[in-house]
Amino acid sequence: MTYCVALKLNAGLVFASDSRTNAGIDQISSFKKMRTFVNRGDRVIVILSSGNLSITQNAINQLETQGRSPEQQNIWNATSMFDVASLLGGCLRHVQNTDRPFLMAGNIDVSANFIVGGQIAGEPPRLFLVYSEGNFIEATENTPFFQIGEIKYGKPIIDRIINSETTLNRAIKCLLVSFDSTMRSNVSVGMPIDMACYMTDSLSLDNIKQMQEGDPYFTSISSKWSEGLNSVFTQLPNPEWACQTPDAEPAQTPSDGQLQNQGIPPI
Amino acid sequence: MTYCVALKLNAGLVFASDSRTNAGIDQISSFKKMRTFVNRGDRVIVILSSGNLSITQNAINQLETQGRSPEQQNIWNATSMFDVASLLGGCLRHVQNTDRPFLMAGNIDVSANFIVGGQIAGEPPRLFLVYSEGNFIEATENTPFFQIGEIKYGKPIIDRIINSETTLNRAIKCLLVSFDSTMRSNVSVGMPIDMACYMTDSLSLDNIKQMQEGDPYFTSISSKWSEGLNSVFTQLPNPEWACQTPDAEPAQTPSDGQLQNQGIPPI
Repeated sequence: MTYCVALKLNAGLVFASDSRTNAGIDQISSFKKMRTFVNRGDRVIVILSSGNLSITQNAINQLETQGRSPEQQNIWNATSMFDVASLLGGCLRHVQNTDRPFLMAGNIDVSANFIVGGQIAGEPPRLFLVYSEGNFIEATENTPFFQIGEIKYGKPIIDRIINSETTLNRAIKCLLVSFDSTMRSNVSVGMPIDMACYMTDSLSLDNIKQMQEGDPYFTSISSKWSEGLNSVFTQLPNPEWACQTPDAEPAQTPSDGQLQNQGIPPI
Repeated sequence: MTYCVALKLNAGLVFASDSRTNAGIDQISSFKKMRTFVNRGDRVIVILSSGNLSITQNAINQLETQGRSPEQQNIWNATSMFDVASLLGGCLRHVQNTDRPFLMAGNIDVSANFIVGGQIAGEPPRLFLVYSEGNFIEATENTPFFQIGEIKYGKPIIDRIINSETTLNRAIKCLLVSFDSTMRSNVSVGMPIDMACYMTDSLSLDNIKQMQEGDPYFTSISSKWSEGLNSVFTQLPNPEWACQTPDAEPAQTPSDGQLQNQGIPPI
């Protein structure tokens, strides 16, 4: 499984992806799911991928190959991020057309998604979600983020915190909390986490970081968040209408086995 | 969609279910998804359901009909919760066998799940998850809860808070927070919320509550949780390595439209 998320804020774009890949439960590897394309002063493009790894790698490879043919439109000369999303969707469709019949014959999931965002000189930063079929949508102010892969566990905190005005620092913290929640609930999402933070109009990508297992900052965010949640939770008002068991002394019962073996009605 | 969850704690069992049912986006209704079967001093059984409403209602109806034939094993004379889960799975299989061919011909999702828990005199409280195929599993101390329906948004808080020792009051609060997170992220899960709280060995079900839209306690939990999360989140340490935009002054950029129309490079 995979978890990738990207935010489009007024202050810039923030990208994050995990690195765990599994082909069956006993074949787990680490693959970077973030690719960056930077021509300083001209364009910064970041692509995150989820789904079938052979398909996403092939599509990106085709995009790179195209990029070495300046006579055709490619990722280095496209004049808009819309065109970049379209190029990526095209590469994905090409790979899907070639590989899908063989993979589906082997009952293999061929789904593959991309998030692609960045800024090309002459345009504001833009963010797109490319579906498995190669079509795509763009993030707007109302929904300034996209997630792909295992998206649900980490969505509530993004829903609560993120809007277009959110600062980059708050956004980075939010994504780390989102990853923390996801990794707690789904073991197939795992470290390291790749993060990239792009500042609007900088046209350079200076803030890239890979957080390994045990990263002090991630560990600190994770433990402070956990402690904070527990503290807020404990302070929530108790239900008046509910069970009168005192909180300090949870009811003790014999273990299942004892009661079952004795066959004694508990009242 | 639906969200139902049940916990098996040392102190007792806690059940909660939403009430929103939709058949297509323009046909949204409210249906109670919790059914209780109580013979005070002898048994307390609670069933939560998700999935195709006609299938779950038919299966429950069959279970009730069986219950009026004392010459056969039924929900009122079964001597264990295991047998009750087995009876429910049997009713589900019967309905699936009858209806599945017709529904699948109409390309209608036939999935249907139940959580069934309770206590029968002579046994400790037990909790089961009945799958769409009629087979079932039992909750253990390691994983003392089951969820059905839209389960992911509300799972992280349960993962953090709930273990077998959790008190009933904490458990009720936790489930309400779990519902709050789910309803924020998925509009197809909605009020009212039905809750039932069973105290181990009481063999009576005295704590049942339906929380309507605007319920003061739920609203208070929801707003205090939201404020608390925001406060904890704001206190998390900022990333030292990241973007230097000051938190107090988010970068301001012209709207997408402005830049695009003017065609002015942003640097």
